[in-house]
Amino acid sequence: MAGPSVPATFLLKDELDIVIPTIRNLDFLEMWRPFFQPYHLIIVQDGDPSKTINVPEGFDYELYNRNDINRILGPKASCISFKDSACRCFGYMVSKKKYIYTIDDDCFVAKDPSGKDINALQQHITNLLCPSTPLFFNTLYDPYRDGADFVRGYPFSMREGAKTAVSHGLWLNVPDYDAPTQLVKPLERNTRFVDAVMTIPKGTLFPMCGMNLAFDRELIGPAMYFGLMGDGQPIGRYDDMWAGWCVKVICDHLGLGVKTGLPYIYHSKASNPFVNLKKEYKGIFWQEECIPFFQNATLPKDCTTVQNCYIELSKQVKEKLGKVDEYFVKLADAMVTWIEAWDELNGTPAAAANGSA
Amino acid sequence: MAGPSVPATFLLKDELDIVIPTIRNLDFLEMWRPFFQPYHLIIVQDGDPSKTINVPEGFDYELYNRNDINRILGPKASCISFKDSACRCFGYMVSKKKYIYTIDDDCFVAKDPSGKDINALQQHITNLLCPSTPLFFNTLYDPYRDGADFVRGYPFSMREGAKTAVSHGLWLNVPDYDAPTQLVKPLERNTRFVDAVMTIPKGTLFPMCGMNLAFDRELIGPAMYFGLMGDGQPIGRYDDMWAGWCVKVICDHLGLGVKTGLPYIYHSKASNPFVNLKKEYKGIFWQEECIPFFQNATLPKDCTTVQNCYIELSKQVKEKLGKVDEYFVKLADAMVTWIEAWDELNGTPAAAANGSA
Repeated sequence: MAGPSVPATFLLKDELDIVIPTIRNLDFLEMWRPFFQPYHLIIVQDGDPSKTINVPEGFDYELYNRNDINRILGPKASCISFKDSACRCFGYMVSKKKYIYTIDDDCFVAKDPSGKDINALQQHITNLLCPSTPLFFNTLYDPYRDGADFVRGYPFSMREGAKTAVSHGLWLNVPDYDAPTQLVKPLERNTRFVDAVMTIPKGTLFPMCGMNLAFDRELIGPAMYFGLMGDGQPIGRYDDMWAGWCVKVICDHLGLGVKTGLPYIYHSKASNPFVNLKKEYKGIFWQEECIPFFQNATLPKDCTTVQNCYIELSKQVKEKLGKVDEYFVKLADAMVTWIEAWDELNGTPAAAANGSA
Repeated sequence: MAGPSVPATFLLKDELDIVIPTIRNLDFLEMWRPFFQPYHLIIVQDGDPSKTINVPEGFDYELYNRNDINRILGPKASCISFKDSACRCFGYMVSKKKYIYTIDDDCFVAKDPSGKDINALQQHITNLLCPSTPLFFNTLYDPYRDGADFVRGYPFSMREGAKTAVSHGLWLNVPDYDAPTQLVKPLERNTRFVDAVMTIPKGTLFPMCGMNLAFDRELIGPAMYFGLMGDGQPIGRYDDMWAGWCVKVICDHLGLGVKTGLPYIYHSKASNPFVNLKKEYKGIFWQEECIPFFQNATLPKDCTTVQNCYIELSKQVKEKLGKVDEYFVKLADAMVTWIEAWDELNGTPAAAANGSA
């Protein structure tokens, strides 16, 4: 009974780009070669632009450093973070492909419980090509997977599902913890392989991690802005969280789906919790204000494109979160700049994304 | 950082009852002996009361047949279904324990991927004694499990969680499919062991199956009414679904949590899909009306007990679903009768359940 059948777990090179933010040589790509080499890489070099980043032979890539970003965006480059992996969103903007996969350079190929290498990219593609089920919870998880379906009591009118805009993958080994949790549990490692993909229900926010993330750029790209972090900003490590809150509110409004679960990558090294605490310090307070704000945010019905939704959200950010700290006024302005830059690089705004039929 | 630590995965005999609806000898208990024998069983015999149900030696139990139900409840026995496993809710009413576990008599002990027998009851107890996280999604699933925690970006103010009212377990082998899906996929078996427990977010409904279900009777008992099904009624096989919709709306209102996932039981035999289709026929249409009704149902703030919430919900059912079919008018009346009978057997209404602190 699972609605659309989903044979394709493969995309052509002209359908997907892999975006990697980095400050170092990309030796980690060696391990990913069998899975990534068929695709084009967009490398966003962070920090000192005079440094040379080595990319292993045989990969097809373009590389942008800070000078490139400044040259391409001019004054609008101010919306792209510096000295923070938030700079990766520049790669989303310059891509011309339908799908994006972004991964951190300390993430390696994980193994499934049988010991087999996990092709994370393939699982993301499957997730994105299968519908989501945001309106009602299916207790056997993704009903479109082999061997699964909608359970008794799942309304038939909702089984067509919604278009999937985002696929959020997880991490074995070092989990994505905040600095306080890292400090308290320095040795905790994630060894639990949960064999599930699920839709995050409509109306529910989640902490979106940018370490292992894929999305449909045509459906949700302009909302994937990773904010103002790092150099000159009062916070870091909230870039992907910010994007996740905005993206989820807009997906819910437009009837699009967000999935989480498989695939796992192997996250090799915990970042320094003391450095992280400094970066996160203000964010830990601010998220207590931001999350209720996003939980209660509603968008007017006439916002039918991602761009419209995002501009509307920026106004609400300025009005409501601007009271929490001056930073959010600056961020709201940067959200507008981001959309202007996106539209400048991508031509006329994308057609309205209307979600499920 | 996981808030309350949860050492206890054990309950005393005076804290939990196991409720089993049946029409046959309970040979299936042999397999459960190591796990169930320490507890008291409440057996609700369905169908012909003159038939004798054999219970294996050594179990401590009480058994109620239709004559007992009629004698104990008098005219209010009309709210308890006949010739449908919905009759099990009578067992919830006569129990005096804090926790209930209910299981079908065609459910056996499942094995985990290492081949070890799964103590389903123990996992349910763990689920019920651990808090839930209904207000925000944790991507590493239950943050209170060993080796897991709240991920980066999870607001600290929400890490205390909410009291857990319901633990919904799953099924290996024969999945809980509706008749149309059974007809289309007669051979589909669930072999995927998903090693996860998760909270169903606030505001999201789910299809609650009564086959392998535990709950906190003090927190949510009066809402666990399995409706009017079977003999003399136009539908069957929607008893647990009905309870699940009501329970979830009330848990959301009272700030209580609902979990799903582990534990698995082994469901041995699919029921006859042709018989099921006849029972489900009207429900398949009606659920298309019921689910939007429950998705939009709101309860007034002054409803602070489960009983108040349930009576209020019965009024809304009569008013709104009564237009769909006369059956819902009868069901709404039975909901009131159920609460009257519950209070009669259990003394004054339970104190207000206020959920998390």
